[in-house]
Amino acid sequence: MSELKGAAIFGQSGGPTSVINASAAGVFTEALKQGNITAVYGAAHGIKGMLDENFYDMSKESAETFELMKTTPSSALGSVRYKLASADVDETDYKRLLEVFKKYDIRYFFYNGGNDSMDTCNKVSKYMQKVGYDCRVMGVPKTIDNDLWGTDHCPGFGSAAKYVATSTMEVYHDARVYDKGTITILEMMGRNAGWLTAATALAADKGKGPDLIYLPEVDFDMEKFLDKVDALYKKSGHVIVAVSEGIKDKDGKYIAEYGSMSKATDSFGHAQLGGLADTLAGFVQEKTGAKVRPVEFSILQRCAAHGGSKTDVDEAFLAGQMAVKFACEGQTDYMVAFERPASGAYQCNIKLVKLDEVANKEKTVPLEWIINDGTGLSKEFIDYATPLIQGASGLPFENGLPKFAELKKVLAKK
Amino acid sequence: MSELKGAAIFGQSGGPTSVINASAAGVFTEALKQGNITAVYGAAHGIKGMLDENFYDMSKESAETFELMKTTPSSALGSVRYKLASADVDETDYKRLLEVFKKYDIRYFFYNGGNDSMDTCNKVSKYMQKVGYDCRVMGVPKTIDNDLWGTDHCPGFGSAAKYVATSTMEVYHDARVYDKGTITILEMMGRNAGWLTAATALAADKGKGPDLIYLPEVDFDMEKFLDKVDALYKKSGHVIVAVSEGIKDKDGKYIAEYGSMSKATDSFGHAQLGGLADTLAGFVQEKTGAKVRPVEFSILQRCAAHGGSKTDVDEAFLAGQMAVKFACEGQTDYMVAFERPASGAYQCNIKLVKLDEVANKEKTVPLEWIINDGTGLSKEFIDYATPLIQGASGLPFENGLPKFAELKKVLAKK
Repeated sequence: MSELKGAAIFGQSGGPTSVINASAAGVFTEALKQGNITAVYGAAHGIKGMLDENFYDMSKESAETFELMKTTPSSALGSVRYKLASADVDETDYKRLLEVFKKYDIRYFFYNGGNDSMDTCNKVSKYMQKVGYDCRVMGVPKTIDNDLWGTDHCPGFGSAAKYVATSTMEVYHDARVYDKGTITILEMMGRNAGWLTAATALAADKGKGPDLIYLPEVDFDMEKFLDKVDALYKKSGHVIVAVSEGIKDKDGKYIAEYGSMSKATDSFGHAQLGGLADTLAGFVQEKTGAKVRPVEFSILQRCAAHGGSKTDVDEAFLAGQMAVKFACEGQTDYMVAFERPASGAYQCNIKLVKLDEVANKEKTVPLEWIINDGTGLSKEFIDYATPLIQGASGLPFENGLPKFAELKKVLAKK
Repeated sequence: MSELKGAAIFGQSGGPTSVINASAAGVFTEALKQGNITAVYGAAHGIKGMLDENFYDMSKESAETFELMKTTPSSALGSVRYKLASADVDETDYKRLLEVFKKYDIRYFFYNGGNDSMDTCNKVSKYMQKVGYDCRVMGVPKTIDNDLWGTDHCPGFGSAAKYVATSTMEVYHDARVYDKGTITILEMMGRNAGWLTAATALAADKGKGPDLIYLPEVDFDMEKFLDKVDALYKKSGHVIVAVSEGIKDKDGKYIAEYGSMSKATDSFGHAQLGGLADTLAGFVQEKTGAKVRPVEFSILQRCAAHGGSKTDVDEAFLAGQMAVKFACEGQTDYMVAFERPASGAYQCNIKLVKLDEVANKEKTVPLEWIINDGTGLSKEFIDYATPLIQGASGLPFENGLPKFAELKKVLAKK
């Protein structure tokens, strides 16, 4: 073990999940235990808070707060979407960061996020190496999209998948309430990777899910889609379709944009309002004459901590905790990642992946798992996803409503 | 106690809730226990199933099924929207119903639903009285809208309110994730009564809810609304607005229709797609230039059994159970209703209200509970709603997903 004494800083970056704060709790509680870590800071709004010296002294927070953070959705410290320029092009941010690191004697840098955030983490790591500033840099994975390279799955996905599958089963019941036929179109998040939309297959596997599932991994053909829906509607009267927001046609055009030309003519000119489900509902209604109901799971799917998975909460915490342990053991320039045994019972083992290998890559749903002419998921996917949605998040309730963490946010300004 | 031997039939009617089947379980389990009830039938799709002789023999269902029904959303038997003509105008349906009742010796009629369903129940009751057919008729209340007359509250509301308040608190966290300002517009169900939108005030009361809440009980003024949002946005950067789908301007025009003229010009001509939240988002974005996110809780708010309230599940079951008990004691022509003590701790007491008094009336949110120039709810509402959202629904999970009732549905055809 190589000894390095100094402060630790942790930042959250990218879109929220319902377990992003569980990873934060893992990092903070572990860092506060480590003898070599002299102070533990939480950056407000990720890298921006570090550049602005806007961060909190986490030693001022209570054990109860860290416990509540495990089930508090979104970003307790504040997140950010900020792309660091390449250091070769513009060193300004890096120099400022180094200045801040030196001022606070920051020797441990933990960054939590998805693809873009791992790019930030990687750039910081490489710069600190280049200028010879001794600092341990660790990425902690996070994204409901589940599209990070080098890890079996990502913290955040299991909870979102459980919420999506549960809600889909509930909508299935709702959609069958009358004896008149209906077509329901469910829209899930996922621009390039269809993992979350694929999670509706968990409901279908129980006989209470979509008839057709469309992921961005496969080109979407409107004619074929409408024919399939029409045939199913004529046959059974009830059809449920799940679509990923990012589905595109063979020319790479987003299907959500099929309705935009007309929408753009409205008096507000907000083509981005009203999503894919609305657009498809228009086409389907025109084709079938059926009652069509578009349902967008919207931001609920990424923040519904009340419907989250215990496995996900535990693993998110573990990822944060292990990042600190590995850093204290001398590791740097890695992202913490998950792997499972090739066969036998599910287990979440931790491994390390070089940040270089992770940054800016995307892991999409394997094409061989997408079956039924691009409208369903194979048993491999069900077996993959099922262990990730086990158990309830354990969100505590007080007087009928959730109890969430309230950070004191004591500034760490020097 | 007046003795009446014969079969019982139960039907579900109107829009689904997440506890409508809890009332069914209450009716069925109690009816199966009663010595005077010779058979227990469940009608497929309410009154329609009765007219079509399409109903199930509930003695064929297991105790486990009834237990699971308590937390199975939507309508296990199938619901219906069917308005019975006045018997003075057209007796056809009534004569047919009498024929079916006689054929199966049905002497107990239980009907579960909202305003329209209580009208059906009332009409059946009066007709059977008129023709001298000895039959006990009982309405069982149900609606997420909470707008039934003569009862303190309605089964279905508590669970929907808990889901709405919980999700609002989660969205509150999500909406504050970045340091850039955002405006979030939440849309809840409720055409004429704003109870469910008012439930977001439970979140606001915890400091994690909407800044502005608009109910259909108060005329909506677009200018004033936009000024308020703009001022709040300029002050704090983060604004959350909750609106009821049914808000109207002083001329009675639905605000959702404000966008319809432009929407109607789209290539599909589906003005009904894309709701109020989308429409308001357009206006708000134009006024403020902010990032605006419309979130529609859609059908999830009425079917999300996983987010339901134990109090609601228990009370829904009790309503069904008591309907049977009262009928067996000789009562008829009533709806089971709830009342609470005027002061002291909350308690759900059962009373009976004449069907005549309930049918086709609506109970809206008291105007004196709507404060802050029509944008907030008073403490009276918080005190009213809080007891109704207590406890978790207890929805059982199996291998990570909800376990719902699966009825055998053994037909009761003679």
